[in-house]
Amino acid sequence: MFIKLDIQTRAKVDLIDITQRIGEAIEEANISEGICFLYCPHTTAGIVLNENWDPTVENDIAMVLGRMVPDNLAYGHSEGNSPAHIKSVLVGTDHFIFVRSGKLEMGQWQGIFLAEFDGPHHRSIWIKAVNDADAC
Amino acid sequence: MFIKLDIQTRAKVDLIDITQRIGEAIEEANISEGICFLYCPHTTAGIVLNENWDPTVENDIAMVLGRMVPDNLAYGHSEGNSPAHIKSVLVGTDHFIFVRSGKLEMGQWQGIFLAEFDGPHHRSIWIKAVNDADAC
Amino acid sequence: MFIKLDIQTRAKVDLIDITQRIGEAIEEANISEGICFLYCPHTTAGIVLNENWDPTVENDIAMVLGRMVPDNLAYGHSEGNSPAHIKSVLVGTDHFIFVRSGKLEMGQWQGIFLAEFDGPHHRSIWIKAVNDADAC
Repeated sequence: MFIKLDIQTRAKVDLIDITQRIGEAIEEANISEGICFLYCPHTTAGIVLNENWDPTVENDIAMVLGRMVPDNLAYGHSEGNSPAHIKSVLVGTDHFIFVRSGKLEMGQWQGIFLAEFDGPHHRSIWIKAVNDADAC
Repeated sequence: MFIKLDIQTRAKVDLIDITQRIGEAIEEANISEGICFLYCPHTTAGIVLNENWDPTVENDIAMVLGRMVPDNLAYGHSEGNSPAHIKSVLVGTDHFIFVRSGKLEMGQWQGIFLAEFDGPHHRSIWIKAVNDADAC
Repeated sequence: MFIKLDIQTRAKVDLIDITQRIGEAIEEANISEGICFLYCPHTTAGIVLNENWDPTVENDIAMVLGRMVPDNLAYGHSEGNSPAHIKSVLVGTDHFIFVRSGKLEMGQWQGIFLAEFDGPHHRSIWIKAVNDADAC
């Protein structure tokens, strides 16, 4: 199963919870035991797996990334979005989640976020879910 | 093959070498050529692949993470463990290792650590090892 | 399909674009729909997925990593390369890219780099590409 999620981000830095959309896509797919691979095809955005219950966690993640990668360094890249490129590398653009009994199996507090670092933008997340070979 | 490892961490920040336990689990499983996927279902812990020969490396990793994500910033999250959430995102909670001829195939100096950032806690690592589809 | 790429790095910190070599390896392999898993078996190097069009981006990534993980901290590890170990953990040593219709499918601006942090060195990248189980 391969699908592309379309996501409109709303601010320069914006963590958007896409857990439910990915969960629904998996439940519609014919996966019993397998893995859901998530891929962000952008170089100034990424994917974050972390707590999605208390929104202050998302804000704190964005705040510390901004402190680690300040906007005002002497960057060589002339487009002005070097911090976004670096944050994308730090959080990663490729992650996976297990699928068990047809559903995403995550920790109790975990959610999946598209992490926008150079928005607002129209973004995509690519999803490939595969059955374990042992089951085929 | 899907199993859950139980791990008791011993300190607030604690890197525990789980290379041998994962290696033994793989050797007991019926995987010849495949991939071992590791998943940490927690939002204040993660998985680190790095040197496990000299323990000063683990200490230096923890020290620099503490410097990058200090405990005393103006965090919004009221539980006081925002640094642990952010460190979890930085090191990642999902990693994989190749399996060849029935064994984990890693670099000479690489080991696998559960990285605790908000301990001591009882933690789990989920392991799914799958044969390559080509071999099934 | 499993192969090892040999890569000679040229400086202490060096991002080497290996997109084309990986793309060629995939096109020679018999993968129609699947995933290309990349693994760096080193503890002082890693793999970066990010923009490979404008080389100032690579330089800015290296610059900020050097600022986040300075060379002159009080490291315990006596080999002097603790910053390289930590940068390896931050960028990651295991990444994947989708394969569709026999080719790597990446975002328009994405490339794949070996990220050297303790060079110059002779390095390897291990590649395992597998067909989706559904297709076997």
